[in-house]
Amino acid sequence: MLGASSVAADDKVYRLKLAETWGPNFPIFGDATKNMAAMADKMSNGRLKIRIDSSNKHKAPLGVFDMVKSGQYDMGHSASYYWKGKVPNTLYFTTMPFGMTASEQYSWFYYGGGMELMADVYKPHNLLSFPGGNTGVQMGGWFQKEIKSVDDLKGLKMRIPGFAGEILAELGAKPTNIAPGELYTALERKTIDALEWVGPSLDLRMGFHKIAPYYYTGWHEPGTELQFLVNQRVWDKLPADLQEILRVAMRTAAYDMYTQSTYESGKNWVSIKTEYPDVQVKNFPPEVMTQLRAANDKLLVEHAAQDDMAKKIQKSQAEYMKQVRSWTEISDKAYLNSFD
Amino acid sequence: MLGASSVAADDKVYRLKLAETWGPNFPIFGDATKNMAAMADKMSNGRLKIRIDSSNKHKAPLGVFDMVKSGQYDMGHSASYYWKGKVPNTLYFTTMPFGMTASEQYSWFYYGGGMELMADVYKPHNLLSFPGGNTGVQMGGWFQKEIKSVDDLKGLKMRIPGFAGEILAELGAKPTNIAPGELYTALERKTIDALEWVGPSLDLRMGFHKIAPYYYTGWHEPGTELQFLVNQRVWDKLPADLQEILRVAMRTAAYDMYTQSTYESGKNWVSIKTEYPDVQVKNFPPEVMTQLRAANDKLLVEHAAQDDMAKKIQKSQAEYMKQVRSWTEISDKAYLNSFD
Repeated sequence: MLGASSVAADDKVYRLKLAETWGPNFPIFGDATKNMAAMADKMSNGRLKIRIDSSNKHKAPLGVFDMVKSGQYDMGHSASYYWKGKVPNTLYFTTMPFGMTASEQYSWFYYGGGMELMADVYKPHNLLSFPGGNTGVQMGGWFQKEIKSVDDLKGLKMRIPGFAGEILAELGAKPTNIAPGELYTALERKTIDALEWVGPSLDLRMGFHKIAPYYYTGWHEPGTELQFLVNQRVWDKLPADLQEILRVAMRTAAYDMYTQSTYESGKNWVSIKTEYPDVQVKNFPPEVMTQLRAANDKLLVEHAAQDDMAKKIQKSQAEYMKQVRSWTEISDKAYLNSFD
Repeated sequence: MLGASSVAADDKVYRLKLAETWGPNFPIFGDATKNMAAMADKMSNGRLKIRIDSSNKHKAPLGVFDMVKSGQYDMGHSASYYWKGKVPNTLYFTTMPFGMTASEQYSWFYYGGGMELMADVYKPHNLLSFPGGNTGVQMGGWFQKEIKSVDDLKGLKMRIPGFAGEILAELGAKPTNIAPGELYTALERKTIDALEWVGPSLDLRMGFHKIAPYYYTGWHEPGTELQFLVNQRVWDKLPADLQEILRVAMRTAAYDMYTQSTYESGKNWVSIKTEYPDVQVKNFPPEVMTQLRAANDKLLVEHAAQDDMAKKIQKSQAEYMKQVRSWTEISDKAYLNSFD
């Protein structure tokens, strides 16, 4: 190591405000924003300070898109599919039913063209969008009644966001999205009959098992990726080194959240069996799965027919998934099945 | 965004030299070091410059440990299990036969105690060790003759490093490690009868399929993690912001390499079928797999009996894998199998 010449530095301190969808001290999701801000602070030697406002502060957990777009906040942390009511094609950048797993989807984002497509969707809104942390495969949700056939889904009021909600609507359910902080009360007061949240990494702390004993395995969110949003004008004002520090801090915090989710999921899955023996883990019946797949395929075709960009994104995802899954089959899947 | 006060900065330029095991412009592995150095340079605004010397320059592809320990190089990029002849317990930090997958192992490193154990093993050698990029599940290797029973392994000269080599030796094979740049020639000239290298992401470019038609699926390296080494004295001289920049750049480059490996594996796996139709993909027969597992279990017990630290690391890995695999079974494995 040689200490040699010196370089000129911009010593100005940049202070950004980030609005997150989550409540204060929310585990894993909130750890991702704190991890990101801490790395940015330390790597910049204090020149990039990011203040995190949780939902108790800004009072608009599902208003993050608008608040970052308008410049009320510089950054956000949320999930892209929450904005599908405003900008339909944002739904493709979180996770898709029967779609890619976390590692498959990261490779699509970073090497398979996903980042470029996401940039195209967010650019008209003056926003930059980045992966913000993965939960891994999500569980299918908590149900107060057992699902024995498609008939049991008819009229079922369920909190389930994104494309999966549209699929359930096809099968007669009544999907809705509700902010995390209101989920327990909504289920307890029967405003909803069922909900999906994440998986063992987060669900047990929410207490859902006390009011809905059936816990179904997942199909609808095989690799849920959260999202960092940055206001384009704010980004443009940062010097190049702080842009790179912010980019890398977000990227690392996202990967780290997937790693943390894996750890917490294993830990909590083991504890379910001992601490909550009344939880009944179920798979949806094959008939239900078949109809979910059929509804998924039908809705994808409908979305693509209405919107050229939707068609383009779907094509990219379908072709890439076919390619990468051929490898997953012979690698992870074959390896995991060799333990049977 | 507010531009506010300013902070004092250390403007000195720190120049580090990194020795990598790989040849110049080596894909994926070499991309990881370039990616890391580029991030460090850009995030530090040119204050942290890392020069990468490939094996053509330093001429010691398997001498990276010694060169970083002695201070001849400040950093290295290689694989921990290459040092097991010098420091036996380094073998546990790359991948273990029948062990954890990439995402399982990252969660062990960062949340399950793995980093702390790795630090304990490297500390007496004045070295810091960090994850340096994952290949995903590796293929079982290229063989000139089909393996129909354990008898076909007897006397087989095979390039296979780490613990897997010891397992094959138990079954009568003659394992050896050979630097990447010499692999093709060794196989072509029959110095070895078989070799494993990585998987479709890298093997096809090496040309092995031209001289060994049988390509076996993997068991021995389910999540091979490369390694960044940093000389402790060099690390200690860096200011805190550059230490964090270096830590985060290494961590991100490692995760990115896993993502790139996933992409390249899918792409190349698809191309095998069209461009190299003569490659015969095989699974080892069940009898061979059973004996490989038995040899693995026997050798682990022997290593643990000889060395308290080996025992401690094995216990940590076995307990953690049991915990995390219970989740992988219900998440990734159940999800991937739902497509059958």
